[in-house]
Amino acid sequence: MVVLPRMFVIRFETRYDESRMSETFNHCLGLRYFSKSDIRYILDITQQIKLGLFAPNLNKAMVVSVFFEPSTRTRLSFEIAVNRCNGQPYTIDVSTSSLSKGESLVDMMNTIAVMGASALVVRHSDAGVPHFLHEQLRIPVINAGDGYHEHPTQGLLDVFTMEDHLGEMKNKRVLICGDIAHSRVAKSNIWALLALGANVIVCGPPNLLPTELADFGVECTHDIDSVIGTVDVVNMLRIQFERQSGIVMPSLAEYRSKYGLTLDRYHQLQPHAIVCHPGPINRGIELDSEVADGKQTVILDQVKNGVLLRMAVLHALLKGNQ
Amino acid sequence: MVVLPRMFVIRFETRYDESRMSETFNHCLGLRYFSKSDIRYILDITQQIKLGLFAPNLNKAMVVSVFFEPSTRTRLSFEIAVNRCNGQPYTIDVSTSSLSKGESLVDMMNTIAVMGASALVVRHSDAGVPHFLHEQLRIPVINAGDGYHEHPTQGLLDVFTMEDHLGEMKNKRVLICGDIAHSRVAKSNIWALLALGANVIVCGPPNLLPTELADFGVECTHDIDSVIGTVDVVNMLRIQFERQSGIVMPSLAEYRSKYGLTLDRYHQLQPHAIVCHPGPINRGIELDSEVADGKQTVILDQVKNGVLLRMAVLHALLKGNQ
Amino acid sequence: MVVLPRMFVIRFETRYDESRMSETFNHCLGLRYFSKSDIRYILDITQQIKLGLFAPNLNKAMVVSVFFEPSTRTRLSFEIAVNRCNGQPYTIDVSTSSLSKGESLVDMMNTIAVMGASALVVRHSDAGVPHFLHEQLRIPVINAGDGYHEHPTQGLLDVFTMEDHLGEMKNKRVLICGDIAHSRVAKSNIWALLALGANVIVCGPPNLLPTELADFGVECTHDIDSVIGTVDVVNMLRIQFERQSGIVMPSLAEYRSKYGLTLDRYHQLQPHAIVCHPGPINRGIELDSEVADGKQTVILDQVKNGVLLRMAVLHALLKGNQ
Repeated sequence: MVVLPRMFVIRFETRYDESRMSETFNHCLGLRYFSKSDIRYILDITQQIKLGLFAPNLNKAMVVSVFFEPSTRTRLSFEIAVNRCNGQPYTIDVSTSSLSKGESLVDMMNTIAVMGASALVVRHSDAGVPHFLHEQLRIPVINAGDGYHEHPTQGLLDVFTMEDHLGEMKNKRVLICGDIAHSRVAKSNIWALLALGANVIVCGPPNLLPTELADFGVECTHDIDSVIGTVDVVNMLRIQFERQSGIVMPSLAEYRSKYGLTLDRYHQLQPHAIVCHPGPINRGIELDSEVADGKQTVILDQVKNGVLLRMAVLHALLKGNQ
Repeated sequence: MVVLPRMFVIRFETRYDESRMSETFNHCLGLRYFSKSDIRYILDITQQIKLGLFAPNLNKAMVVSVFFEPSTRTRLSFEIAVNRCNGQPYTIDVSTSSLSKGESLVDMMNTIAVMGASALVVRHSDAGVPHFLHEQLRIPVINAGDGYHEHPTQGLLDVFTMEDHLGEMKNKRVLICGDIAHSRVAKSNIWALLALGANVIVCGPPNLLPTELADFGVECTHDIDSVIGTVDVVNMLRIQFERQSGIVMPSLAEYRSKYGLTLDRYHQLQPHAIVCHPGPINRGIELDSEVADGKQTVILDQVKNGVLLRMAVLHALLKGNQ
Repeated sequence: MVVLPRMFVIRFETRYDESRMSETFNHCLGLRYFSKSDIRYILDITQQIKLGLFAPNLNKAMVVSVFFEPSTRTRLSFEIAVNRCNGQPYTIDVSTSSLSKGESLVDMMNTIAVMGASALVVRHSDAGVPHFLHEQLRIPVINAGDGYHEHPTQGLLDVFTMEDHLGEMKNKRVLICGDIAHSRVAKSNIWALLALGANVIVCGPPNLLPTELADFGVECTHDIDSVIGTVDVVNMLRIQFERQSGIVMPSLAEYRSKYGLTLDRYHQLQPHAIVCHPGPINRGIELDSEVADGKQTVILDQVKNGVLLRMAVLHALLKGNQ
């Protein structure tokens, strides 16, 4: 079992660091480390890839994904992105790995790195593991989700999709609704949207809404109906049944009625507003099934853009290899 | 859990549709949808690939295989076929997928499709799932086995191997022996062989032999010894131990003595007759071990041809990408 | 279940065969079959690859790895090696395979072979399985670890790393310490080191040290402190917790104090001496954590060289394909 040093226990209240990287990326650990220009840089590359104006070339660089939590979509999205950048993807499923033999996390990852990995993609149920590995291994690491902390490529593909539909996010109103406290997607969205100058509103059950968010200029509400008609984007979080143990939640029916995007609420949206969701969807809970398939819903665009966005991140991290 | 709409509950008695595709394939869901000329078209491409006269080129098209049932040979065969066609294979093992997170089947497969899949290969324990996905996703789907229904590429590789050894199947006598009712291989064989004008005889325990097959001109018998000396092909089905729950079967010794291809019965075959089996073999049950390794047994040819046949199917479905 | 014929029950006391292959390799089953010139040949190719003077080209040859025991590092190392040789790697994880359907091992592997495999990589918990498959299938087989028997590519990468640091192993003193009786790594090291003319000392608990090793000129001791200051290499074996059932072992603390490479013992090493370990490491048991990260410790070099060494073995086995 890895025990994280104190410095790697990421505190939610930490704001992103203004003295940052300016286009010399050596990690993609969290969007709280990304400035507006960092984010703009990645979004611009993504747009160029989408328009067919740019094709990253990793020259067969090895990118190794290590998933300590199960995943289909993120894992596949990275594998496709690596292949489309002419890289060499490898994916390690930890249930079949030698961690079961008692190996330390750093030893395992060091072993993978010295075999020739140019970058690592890491998902882990403990916040801070990707940071810890980046610090120890001195190799570009992409955080593919760490505990309740961040999921930066998801945050970036979300804002890319929002801008693709609505133009620049400055002064746009974005509602993020669900279990904010335990959502890494929410946190990555918040940092990115704040950096781009959007107005962020979070909504969820009182015990799942960190009130310290107000200190960063985030508007907090428990009443989705009071804001639903005023926003440009609704980003609905999924109920994470697989990570609920110990969290006090309303019943599913109560959750839907208080915080779900029902068809009634969907009809109150402004005509230009869009609905996002990181997937997989719980139809009938956080999204009514008709809403999931609605015309203002852009979930499949998010998935499609996710591959392009990850290509852009791989390019930004590994362009020295080209 | 996906609930299949009524129209997708495939009824065994439905005959293949005469008003079909004529070389404009957009799926490979079942051989009951394939006309004689469709089958001939696929077999001809396979022969050209085998002779080195034709090499399909998928131009890096993504083919995603999703296996909801375990598989080694079919899965590997498709991966090799995709690679040999210069495609990009991805395989998803559902035990590690997000279906465990409660996602609907269509949402999951849609997600995969929009990431850029040009075709899907699907194996599922429920009959009709590949049809349902093809209908919903509007993308070429290859059925790699759905419940008791069909396994069309297996049926095609079987008839390819038969013709490779015996010439055209018109008027040839083919005995299919085993649990006909629960075998998707049997059904795909029957549709293909009937389309090519072969005489099909099925043999098995009375409770596992659907009598309505007689309506399609299939000869039914419970007495393998009465026909073994008269046929050109014996296609022995495997006892599916892993899917037997609730099916009344004789004991293994009784099964072998009544329906197995014992060495004694093997010696009664005509000298030109061949023995097929879809694998994996239960040596000593449906095939005596000496028969499995006998000179008239073509099981490894079936495996070898399977890769070529799947290349031909991929070409037929995706040639527009080339 | 495969039952190994008597001839394949490998007896430890058998010396490697002097009448061997001389650069016409058709297997890599164990180093007891490799002469000095065989080993030298592989090490030389590895060195050329390392120096960038030679790049093997397998021309898309299929290499299929079948792991009947879990593995991360060996599996990944082979996949990378195959890709870097321009081969096509496939890996089969047996827990998801059709062996669960009762198929025989030979039938399964034959199926894989006829799909077009040019070579097989096999790891199995039973000694002799790779030999058996090589005999039955007539295809190049690389043993990636079989029971307590051998792990030849590990043995070769160990001696490559030793020579890379120390020059030729002739007359060098190498201490192998741990559970010698149950270690395939120890055995492959012993055969290779004896062939190269090194002096081999083995150390471990009395019940885990086969005394017949003395017949081959191997020095046996139970007292690590009496030799630690005299050797050029210490190769520390890992305690195989996952394979310990039924083996009488000291407590972990006692094991460390009697046979572990503690920091105290590390300081008694000659300045030029190196420390090897096949990984994964049990920090604090066979190696103190400071020793694992020490300057004389070359574990990550072993991992790095492992990829190159496996490229050399693949070249030696498949050069006819080029």
